[in-house]
Amino acid sequence: MSKKRAATAPVSVVGLGLMGQALAAAFLEAGHPTTVWNRTAAKADRLVTEGAVRAGSVAEAVAASPLVVVCVTDYAAVRELLDPVAGSLEGKVVVNLTTGTSTQARETAAWAAGLGTAYLDGAVMAIPPDIATDAAVLLYSGPKAAFEEHEATLRALGPAGTTYLDTDHALSALYDMSLLGIMWGILNGFLQGAALLGTAKVKATAFAPLANTMINVVTEYVTAYAPQIDEGAYPAGDATMTVHRDAMVHLAEESETLGVNAELPRFFAALADRAVADGHAGSGYAAMIEQFRRPAA
Amino acid sequence: MSKKRAATAPVSVVGLGLMGQALAAAFLEAGHPTTVWNRTAAKADRLVTEGAVRAGSVAEAVAASPLVVVCVTDYAAVRELLDPVAGSLEGKVVVNLTTGTSTQARETAAWAAGLGTAYLDGAVMAIPPDIATDAAVLLYSGPKAAFEEHEATLRALGPAGTTYLDTDHALSALYDMSLLGIMWGILNGFLQGAALLGTAKVKATAFAPLANTMINVVTEYVTAYAPQIDEGAYPAGDATMTVHRDAMVHLAEESETLGVNAELPRFFAALADRAVADGHAGSGYAAMIEQFRRPAA
Ligand SMILES: NC(=O)c1ccc[n+]([C@@H]2O[C@H](COP(=O)([O-])OP(=O)(O)OC[C@H]3O[C@@H](n4cnc5c(N)ncnc54)[C@H](OP(=O)(O)O)[C@@H]3O)[C@@H](O)[C@H]2O)c1
Ligand SMILES: NC(=O)c1ccc[n+]([C@@H]2O[C@H](COP(=O)([O-])OP(=O)(O)OC[C@H]3O[C@@H](n4cnc5c(N)ncnc54)[C@H](OP(=O)(O)O)[C@@H]3O)[C@@H](O)[C@H]2O)c1
Repeated sequence: MSKKRAATAPVSVVGLGLMGQALAAAFLEAGHPTTVWNRTAAKADRLVTEGAVRAGSVAEAVAASPLVVVCVTDYAAVRELLDPVAGSLEGKVVVNLTTGTSTQARETAAWAAGLGTAYLDGAVMAIPPDIATDAAVLLYSGPKAAFEEHEATLRALGPAGTTYLDTDHALSALYDMSLLGIMWGILNGFLQGAALLGTAKVKATAFAPLANTMINVVTEYVTAYAPQIDEGAYPAGDATMTVHRDAMVHLAEESETLGVNAELPRFFAALADRAVADGHAGSGYAAMIEQFRRPAA
Repeated sequence: MSKKRAATAPVSVVGLGLMGQALAAAFLEAGHPTTVWNRTAAKADRLVTEGAVRAGSVAEAVAASPLVVVCVTDYAAVRELLDPVAGSLEGKVVVNLTTGTSTQARETAAWAAGLGTAYLDGAVMAIPPDIATDAAVLLYSGPKAAFEEHEATLRALGPAGTTYLDTDHALSALYDMSLLGIMWGILNGFLQGAALLGTAKVKATAFAPLANTMINVVTEYVTAYAPQIDEGAYPAGDATMTVHRDAMVHLAEESETLGVNAELPRFFAALADRAVADGHAGSGYAAMIEQFRRPAA
């Protein structure tokens, strides 16, 4: 097959939740003949008015295109949908954009290999409104040839951020989990702050610009700490673990005094305490990697 | 006093840890006659070779300048240093850049008021190497006139990011705690990911660029969720709490399977579970504000 496809390459989308609908809409918008299927059929209605072909069954959706994109709640649902049509998956490229663990990605890859199906495990690092924009990052792992064969089509979902990672199917899920952890870390930190400042009648909308300034600054710390993590040496060029731990305790006290939830700062302080106890009182924050690598006692 | 000062306005810096040294160096660099004091005197040596005047005591440092900047470990140390010289603080402006809670800021403000001292509570949202650069954000609260009187001097620490917040002394500490929570949230999320990816031999330096892309994208979510938090309505235009909770459980499982610390994702999932149980299964992530506002049962 040629590596370049016109926007006329057909694609089927199985699963039309918030994300699946955005994916199908992006393929349609890019001019791809798009076949869609969803368990609750009504979720296809808007897409059909925009030009999508409604498949009456998963089997029909699979038959319609060489490229089948699946995005449902979890891997159990993926298998529930695809197992009954396993016989018709030979020669297809299945791209699974459902969130799951690397173990699930590998299991699904093994299952697909047994069917003669080229399987790409993917991860959508974007929200539905950002699909098809340059803000959308999508990660793929699995056979490189299958990715390259359909890369032009997949780029409709993220023109700038479509990224092939590795032949190892585990990688997209691992990156997915790792990046989601950062996302929740930011959002939870912001919510903790919004709750604290809310007690002083500071609105979240007033807090957000300064929060985003801070978030941008921290990207520099990430860049600075990454080589320290790789090298296993954590000099405190900025602040020591003692200074961090003490400030975390302040955040916990602040939260308790103001009557907001103190679990997040207490948890952070407990982790930092362990780093200090491990001899990292004078190390920089990158020393915390040792706590994250090690399961709790 | 005039609101504009030449860079000849004298300033004293009490406390020359990692941060205090950077503060004093920035004042010196901007041309201010800078007097410095530190408990461990040797930490002043480099500054003195660069032109700082070494004070032999806190009393000497206070006497040398109308503006006294204090940056030590904690508020207990601030009082330990300043209580013995309380009699000479009348008419001075004391700027405290030590990290602490809003309660400590208010207590210190009350103490200063009793001495006839103008007190500004401040927060340094920057690491020492960023002091004096446009990346440095410094927040001040307390009497506005005192801030304006010394604003030109204080801008040496953060030319772009010097920000006056409010007459209420509590605000700089509250913002400080709130922004630090975000910083640790990001760093801990990154470390969780680095630990996970490390099991697949992906280096932290390889992960960092994608991590920073994600971090930048999340600023948009912060901007989008802030008005939802203020309005108390959390429509799921992107992903539901169920989808988030399920993905958090995946992150916990991933961490357990790969033998890295799973406490962070387990804690996140537990909080999200509570939001789901509270009727927010179909709400967006901003619904989590209710969990952060409420102390754990
Ligand atoms: N939304 C986001 O921002 C986002 C971002 C990145 C990744 N993701 C991932 O994308 C996937 C889908 O998320 P979403 O937001 O679209 O979720 P959603 O709105 O809850 O939609 C879930 C979809 O899965 C289908 N489904 C679930 N179980 C099924 C089963 N047993 N058989 C057939 N269909 C089943 C649902 O069908 P019905 O309509 O019939 O219920 C629906 O189409 C998840 O893995 C999520 O983690 C989402
Ligand atoms: N470093 C950062 O990135 C950063 C960022 C923002 C805010 N801050 C805040 O700035 C403050 C100082 O941080 P740092 O990084 O400079 O800490 P540091 O390097 O540990 O220095 C602590 C300073 O406090 C002094 N000190 C502590 N207890 C004292 C006492 N009882 N009497 C007299 N001096 C005492 C120390 O004097 P000796 O030298 O004699 O021990 C030293 O000058 C903290 O509140 C921290 O949270 C730091």
